[in-house]
Amino acid sequence: MEYRVSAPEVLREPLVVPDKLLMGPGPSNAHPRVLEAMSRPILGHLHPETLKIMDDIKAGMRYLFQTNNAATFCLSASGHGGMEATLCNLLEDGDVVLIGHTGHWGDRAADMASRYGADVHMVRASSGSALTLAEIKRALETHRPSVLFLTQGDSSTGVLQGLEGVGALCRAHDCLLIVDTVASLGGAPFHMDRWEIDAVYTGSQKVLGAPPGITPISFNHRAVERYKRRQTKVKVYYWDMALVGDYWGCFGRPRIYHHTISSTLLYGLREAIALACAESIPSIIARHQDCAKRLYDGLLGMGLELYAQEQDRLATVTTIRVPQGVDWLQVSQYAMKTYLVEISGGLGPTAGQVFRIGLMGQNATSERVDRVLQVFRDAIKSVKPDFAFRRNASKM
Amino acid sequence: MEYRVSAPEVLREPLVVPDKLLMGPGPSNAHPRVLEAMSRPILGHLHPETLKIMDDIKAGMRYLFQTNNAATFCLSASGHGGMEATLCNLLEDGDVVLIGHTGHWGDRAADMASRYGADVHMVRASSGSALTLAEIKRALETHRPSVLFLTQGDSSTGVLQGLEGVGALCRAHDCLLIVDTVASLGGAPFHMDRWEIDAVYTGSQKVLGAPPGITPISFNHRAVERYKRRQTKVKVYYWDMALVGDYWGCFGRPRIYHHTISSTLLYGLREAIALACAESIPSIIARHQDCAKRLYDGLLGMGLELYAQEQDRLATVTTIRVPQGVDWLQVSQYAMKTYLVEISGGLGPTAGQVFRIGLMGQNATSERVDRVLQVFRDAIKSVKPDFAFRRNASKM
Repeated sequence: MEYRVSAPEVLREPLVVPDKLLMGPGPSNAHPRVLEAMSRPILGHLHPETLKIMDDIKAGMRYLFQTNNAATFCLSASGHGGMEATLCNLLEDGDVVLIGHTGHWGDRAADMASRYGADVHMVRASSGSALTLAEIKRALETHRPSVLFLTQGDSSTGVLQGLEGVGALCRAHDCLLIVDTVASLGGAPFHMDRWEIDAVYTGSQKVLGAPPGITPISFNHRAVERYKRRQTKVKVYYWDMALVGDYWGCFGRPRIYHHTISSTLLYGLREAIALACAESIPSIIARHQDCAKRLYDGLLGMGLELYAQEQDRLATVTTIRVPQGVDWLQVSQYAMKTYLVEISGGLGPTAGQVFRIGLMGQNATSERVDRVLQVFRDAIKSVKPDFAFRRNASKM
Repeated sequence: MEYRVSAPEVLREPLVVPDKLLMGPGPSNAHPRVLEAMSRPILGHLHPETLKIMDDIKAGMRYLFQTNNAATFCLSASGHGGMEATLCNLLEDGDVVLIGHTGHWGDRAADMASRYGADVHMVRASSGSALTLAEIKRALETHRPSVLFLTQGDSSTGVLQGLEGVGALCRAHDCLLIVDTVASLGGAPFHMDRWEIDAVYTGSQKVLGAPPGITPISFNHRAVERYKRRQTKVKVYYWDMALVGDYWGCFGRPRIYHHTISSTLLYGLREAIALACAESIPSIIARHQDCAKRLYDGLLGMGLELYAQEQDRLATVTTIRVPQGVDWLQVSQYAMKTYLVEISGGLGPTAGQVFRIGLMGQNATSERVDRVLQVFRDAIKSVKPDFAFRRNASKM
């Protein structure tokens, strides 16, 4: 039979992948050991060596989440999959969910939850700020949700949401607490068990510096109990915690094929987690916070203004107000074109209003902070030659 | 604050990835060019180089699916994601879906569709056989579905479902046709446009020999129209064809961030597709069919019995009845342990009843057919020394 659609010429050309410095809100640059691991041969999804790597990842993620939860595993999807899976497993039609809004990720969670048939309510922080415990308490009392969703680090605003005390509040209101730590884990303390957080997920491609496409997640016993008491099946087979958890050997039952996991991504994630465990959580957090401080000093020294309030700043993603008369897109494009350095614009509620500079994983070093400051300064100067940098900026 | 969960010792050990010959139903071994590509640096999800690679993949998949569909893109998930996304986008609560059952994948599709709230009906082929056009026609007339789901190659049974004529039948019944080509694409002809197939997806890790974790999918104009006429939002943000399609630049609208795609998997898939385009569809299919013939001859020559009927055999996955008195698991384990060669057992309806040998991508060569036959023979002999191979088997 005749083939009507012919093979595209473009695929005769070689693959082109430049080596950039990824100082946006993620992905970050991966460690050479992570990249090397991903060229290893493919393994089957139930081979003992694959299961061993999955077990290593579970153990490492329990450390990084600070949890003893049996139901700690990964989803074969981007970080969005973590948001989908926590909401999909813990909500049924008509359930009330309260979303703490500190930026774009609250909007995204609200969209997903409403698609799953939940009754969605929002509690909004003021611009550039986190929610206070009092605001959360009041909203819990008003809406009586069965699930509260919070984003620890909202990468669109650079706001860090405090979590201490929220778990206890949720228990008092018979409410489960889901926390998105995609952009924050490793950049701020996180204690899943001590803080009584019921479900969490993170991003592989942020502080961990693994490839995107595989998403660590953990559910505690309260979340598993809620799942067991569901009146209806979870709407999505692919996110069903019992099925994925059985494949990951989380519930003491035989491993059952659920989907074909990407051995390549497992290798990369395993090596990234091994590097993080070797460095230790306190060192990683201190490194990110020291670098963030250095970045703030540099930016403020240039006369720029930060978007997030000082007490609510996320170390991993810094949001900088776009100065009047500066075209953010031109600045970003100049940095990329001239230096292969990524400096991002805003997202969702901050689109057009801020620049975003990420300090994550391999990129959280004083050298890279200085590099991105120099590139940023040069890019602004190039786009707006008369931009009035503060006098003391020359000290940099 | 004190860290109560300590870093696991096991992550101090090096990553261990043996190099196996993957002659099961997938994943298959990847070409060295594919593996090498995956150690390239990470790129951002909206970088022009990433978008270029995505465009290359779209063009290549249009050739491999034989379609001009604008809505040809990938999901950031395993092959199961393709099944989820086709059903999720094209079904609403109460819609009637008819599932053609030739093995495990019909059961899986039925599970997913019922979770999405559809009214699920099955038309079952007899064991080891495909459905006839007459059987499909009768079932369409009986159930009046809005969607028909077929698996072109069911990897659990090794059955190839014929597709010619089904598209026209579906149009006559105002029904959309979804086809799963995860295990079949490249092993049997497939002409999406000519055969009037409305939605299709395939597996990256089968004939293509790319890593798992990224799933090519295509919807035609009828499927897109059905989507547009939905009364309710698609239940899963992550699978929403308009959103993913916009990110992939399918609908002529600006590219919008939907999720963080795995550049690593894009590199691997792009290179695998480039290799397939260079070889051409007719050559790939002929190679797989020639190898399958050689495998059948070898197996029959050993006195073994094939599970799928001769006229309905899938070239990429061959199912062999487990001979009486032979412990399939021991055979499979012996092959893996002694030779690092994967020979699988059954799945779903064929569990415990068959062996499955895959010939996919790099593994569809006469040398590898001979290798797997020799290993299989040796493994059976080792597990059951008195097994009566047919006399002429010695010719092999």
